[in-house]
Amino acid sequence: MTPERAPRRLLAMAGALDGIRVLDFTRYQQGPYATTMLADLGARVVKVEDPAGGDYGRRLWRGADGYSPFWEALNRGKESICIDLKKADGIALVLDLVDQFDVVAENFRTGAMERFGLGYDALRARNERIIYAQASGWGTLGPLAEAPSFDQIAQARSGFAQHTGGGPGAIPQVPYPGIADHVGAMNFAAGILAALFARERTGRGQRVDVSLLGSQLALQSAELQHAFHYGEQRPREFRSSPTAGHYRCSDGHWLMIVGIDQKFWPRLCKALEMEHLADDPRFARGGGRFANREALQATLDGVFAKRTAGEWLERLQAVDHPAGIVQGHEDIGTDPQVLANDYVVTRKHPRWGTEQTVGLHIQLSETPGKVGSPAPALGANTRGVLRELGVDDARVESLLRDGVLRDG
Amino acid sequence: MTPERAPRRLLAMAGALDGIRVLDFTRYQQGPYATTMLADLGARVVKVEDPAGGDYGRRLWRGADGYSPFWEALNRGKESICIDLKKADGIALVLDLVDQFDVVAENFRTGAMERFGLGYDALRARNERIIYAQASGWGTLGPLAEAPSFDQIAQARSGFAQHTGGGPGAIPQVPYPGIADHVGAMNFAAGILAALFARERTGRGQRVDVSLLGSQLALQSAELQHAFHYGEQRPREFRSSPTAGHYRCSDGHWLMIVGIDQKFWPRLCKALEMEHLADDPRFARGGGRFANREALQATLDGVFAKRTAGEWLERLQAVDHPAGIVQGHEDIGTDPQVLANDYVVTRKHPRWGTEQTVGLHIQLSETPGKVGSPAPALGANTRGVLRELGVDDARVESLLRDGVLRDG
Repeated sequence: MTPERAPRRLLAMAGALDGIRVLDFTRYQQGPYATTMLADLGARVVKVEDPAGGDYGRRLWRGADGYSPFWEALNRGKESICIDLKKADGIALVLDLVDQFDVVAENFRTGAMERFGLGYDALRARNERIIYAQASGWGTLGPLAEAPSFDQIAQARSGFAQHTGGGPGAIPQVPYPGIADHVGAMNFAAGILAALFARERTGRGQRVDVSLLGSQLALQSAELQHAFHYGEQRPREFRSSPTAGHYRCSDGHWLMIVGIDQKFWPRLCKALEMEHLADDPRFARGGGRFANREALQATLDGVFAKRTAGEWLERLQAVDHPAGIVQGHEDIGTDPQVLANDYVVTRKHPRWGTEQTVGLHIQLSETPGKVGSPAPALGANTRGVLRELGVDDARVESLLRDGVLRDG
Repeated sequence: MTPERAPRRLLAMAGALDGIRVLDFTRYQQGPYATTMLADLGARVVKVEDPAGGDYGRRLWRGADGYSPFWEALNRGKESICIDLKKADGIALVLDLVDQFDVVAENFRTGAMERFGLGYDALRARNERIIYAQASGWGTLGPLAEAPSFDQIAQARSGFAQHTGGGPGAIPQVPYPGIADHVGAMNFAAGILAALFARERTGRGQRVDVSLLGSQLALQSAELQHAFHYGEQRPREFRSSPTAGHYRCSDGHWLMIVGIDQKFWPRLCKALEMEHLADDPRFARGGGRFANREALQATLDGVFAKRTAGEWLERLQAVDHPAGIVQGHEDIGTDPQVLANDYVVTRKHPRWGTEQTVGLHIQLSETPGKVGSPAPALGANTRGVLRELGVDDARVESLLRDGVLRDG
């Protein structure tokens, strides 16, 4: 089935965001993953961190060896400069720099940047083309606008924890901590891209607002449309339907099948050697298969238990029925389909040596971008970046002495 | 806590993508939700459907009353024209139209558009500025490039189903069917936005590739970084930690708390009237709280069971500790925080009357976009759009007679 196709990226041009500069005040996850996406797409991202220890994300998930997968995954491709935003000289420095940037990104609580003196109005007064992008917890309006939030709180409030737990009455679950942050980040990046596009056409910057809560609701827009129309949560079962779910095979591995379209039913029957069921009036059409799903699932449980997942997968592929093995995270780094598409790539890390990392999932043929350099040490670029931005050496050294800046 | 702030959108300018035209061949979910996002942002999206019945998504989740929340949520803001792509006259018509569009979007299997004669090379020959955007299941390279896939298959292959089930050895779960599609869609939209931005600067179109598999891996980039580094899946428990998880309260409702930062611990102890634990050597620091999490969780289970979720929430808010109620989908339409940010809005549907729908989650101050008109009837715009694009009336009527087109 391997298609013969010319390799992509014959024209190794720069990233789509080449030349775009992001002044990045983000911390934790929702902000940092978004600015990593922008860095992958070619933007230069200068991360501003607190001299006292920097982004708290540097310490999250840190193992006994000192490695933080959280930090490494969310901050590649960035430079780090340390500026103390609690000191007036630090704020003055930021204000002096902002006209050299295209985007300011932050995910403080709503109102925090204003209290620093770095709100949109203050920055726009220095640079009317600036795109000011905030990723908040709750949105910028409403009773909770300035309340603290985190990933799991958005999963809870948005109905996601309830629905993934099984629906009303079931114990709510957070089956994937961080998903609200990561989805928020993807939409935060999209919002900044939309504003950059608009600025090319209008010449004007603007404010971009994305939140954990808003993105979690967008993620569920179809299920929520059901709730709005029918007044109740859409039911959720272990398998969406007997022909859209996973079954345990003889080797203990699970195989996922998805045959929504009617055309897949006879193929499934053929692949599973149960052709006698193809025209069974209970199962011949989708409505019947769903109405009689307990009987059909029991049949399929028995059938799949007869052979290994690999054997069934081969048979399903032979009849062109959608199917896939259930893998664990430890299988991803050697998955040939993943590697063939550069969804996981290998890089050299100055401290940790050769390692794998998730590659670019948004792939552009002419402006491909690249996986950036590993996440920076705290303040590694303070002197270098400030010099490059034209800040006077004497001022930098003075601010370093005063503890307003920190280098390396 | 309600902040006083000027309302957004004093300048009700057009959407960021005003004037951008998308020729939309997408079906099901990953493609359609992306082009709905583009429509919300101001693009004109002309959806091309099969005259025999259109997008299969029209029929998914359809209730006894004929309403499909799936279709309505994923296709608002679009026009529908019906062209039979299995007929040469249909293909010729598409090729004649493509120079009036900025973006062609599709989520067929890799290779399908080429077989129609509508691959990137064929379209670029008609319009060198075209952005050709494909959302696939598996990426465009590798052994599975042309294999079928659906949402749950990507959840399975990417490790998501395994991880959300509890990790290796546990029964895999698909706690939210459709999440791979929706996340893929968000990244598909972001990829198209990046290409549109690049085109403003380079004058050149390009190919955009996003897939279910690639987006699912990106969604898990932090967890996967753990697996790459440590060689095993990161453990997952019911609660991430005793102070980041949900607890059942006396009224049966669940409350989510997230106190990662050390500063929240004394606040939690105060709000929960357990100040005696604040300096308890077992719990005083994060490491101890995690090591002794069973004891602490048991304590918290008991404490939360003493009052209602609303009472505890009020106390936690009073000390500025991050917390949120666990809601169901049926709570979202009346949530004041959701409504205050227009995350859910009310619209008029010509068939279904006044109804709620998820609003714009990417909010831009100067080019706000808008929730588009409800999803179109099949072929509702065939005559009107083709006339507007300059197709000769006689040709349209002839193609309608031949069944190549269908109107309304």
